[in-house]
Amino acid sequence: MEHIRGYDKYIQEIIRTIPDVIRGIEIVDIEQKSGERDLVTEVDKGVEEFLRKKILDEFPDHEVMGEETYDTSLEYNTKNLWVIDPIDGTANFVKQRNDFCTIVSYFEDGEPMLTYIYEVTKDDLYHGMSGEGVYLNGEKLPKIENKSLFESMIGTDIRRMYLHMSELFKKIVNESFATRSVGTSGLEGSRVVSGRLGGYINYYGGPWDYSPFFLFAKEMGLVFKTLEGKDLEINSGYSNFILCTEKVYEELISN
Amino acid sequence: MEHIRGYDKYIQEIIRTIPDVIRGIEIVDIEQKSGERDLVTEVDKGVEEFLRKKILDEFPDHEVMGEETYDTSLEYNTKNLWVIDPIDGTANFVKQRNDFCTIVSYFEDGEPMLTYIYEVTKDDLYHGMSGEGVYLNGEKLPKIENKSLFESMIGTDIRRMYLHMSELFKKIVNESFATRSVGTSGLEGSRVVSGRLGGYINYYGGPWDYSPFFLFAKEMGLVFKTLEGKDLEINSGYSNFILCTEKVYEELISN
Repeated sequence: MEHIRGYDKYIQEIIRTIPDVIRGIEIVDIEQKSGERDLVTEVDKGVEEFLRKKILDEFPDHEVMGEETYDTSLEYNTKNLWVIDPIDGTANFVKQRNDFCTIVSYFEDGEPMLTYIYEVTKDDLYHGMSGEGVYLNGEKLPKIENKSLFESMIGTDIRRMYLHMSELFKKIVNESFATRSVGTSGLEGSRVVSGRLGGYINYYGGPWDYSPFFLFAKEMGLVFKTLEGKDLEINSGYSNFILCTEKVYEELISN
Repeated sequence: MEHIRGYDKYIQEIIRTIPDVIRGIEIVDIEQKSGERDLVTEVDKGVEEFLRKKILDEFPDHEVMGEETYDTSLEYNTKNLWVIDPIDGTANFVKQRNDFCTIVSYFEDGEPMLTYIYEVTKDDLYHGMSGEGVYLNGEKLPKIENKSLFESMIGTDIRRMYLHMSELFKKIVNESFATRSVGTSGLEGSRVVSGRLGGYINYYGGPWDYSPFFLFAKEMGLVFKTLEGKDLEINSGYSNFILCTEKVYEELISN
């Protein structure tokens, strides 16, 4: 495990420089990806390129999966795999210049070893290491209370849940304490792992969106599954998913 | 107007001490107010008491309207009226210890003169003065772009809109760029005034929830009305309301 501590030190240093990287990129064009609400900017591409280069400079034989260069036809080698979401919450970045984050996760022989969610505007770093727990800015997060659905605020994507999973959406709205929406998997997941939300549901995310949740679930006793109750792997591709307490999972999904 | 600058200086000093006031209050009981999701804590009461005392110490002949001591049967004298929401977002305070704020507004002869939205955990102070604009931590906020509904993220209370205004909710979800929910009138209103959200809709709020929006609308060219298109006054009592750009108002409400 000593090499993992070395990797961790290296990534922690790099990730804190992201605000400077972003400031150095000029936004001249905002592209639409798959749909009119799915945006991508030079910042997404520039931050991915920056992280990819930094990782491959240090670990030339490792593999990198990044949102902006993702190839759905590929089975990524998980022996030494880094997964990057350069800007998670690009719509918030474009519309609000706030509520976005950078996600980096590291897998070894398919197992989650390290994960980072960096909230750029707050300089807040959530960071997890296999067997060591999850930390916010170096401070270990306490055990999460196993809250029921009614005790919990639930984070989710309002439009897609309302339009495509209307029964589940109705149940969340009626039976949870309240529904919240930030609009990024990373930040809503970090609110689950810090006990602020009892669950976060994503209707359709990529591996970079859910890459931290393998480790979060393992280290903090949370449930991380698809909405059909299946397990995910980092090569599972696009999928729906939930990260939540055991009780929320029982009430919302397995019943 | 010179006396208003004096008032402003006094309130700015007091409001920044709220984190200490909160730390000094022990929470032993969380009460339910009107419903099982409507919470009130010792902190709500203690912060209101603190602000009321500070205001009446300095301005003994002024009147104070506070959420925790509000009397619906009363017509408050608006000659010199201070309106207080000690903790806006009590549910977030209880569940998340985050995403809550303190609101203070001052009216003279019924006209909005001063308003403050203080985000406690961030030490961020939004502050407006009649004729002077709106500021975040002393920096003047720029003019707001008159964004269309499709260009705008809209903040709202998911449960109450979904259950009680389902047609309007559907329109927001389908036609806005995205729906967001923080769960406090003050913080979502501050996101409108800083251009992050194109609109914020509250299904049922008290005067303390909407007290800043008279000044925000006037100073920043926003629309602030009920969802039936009526004007509000600080004595209008509980009501629905919207704070938004002119275009969002036209597309969402007046059509």
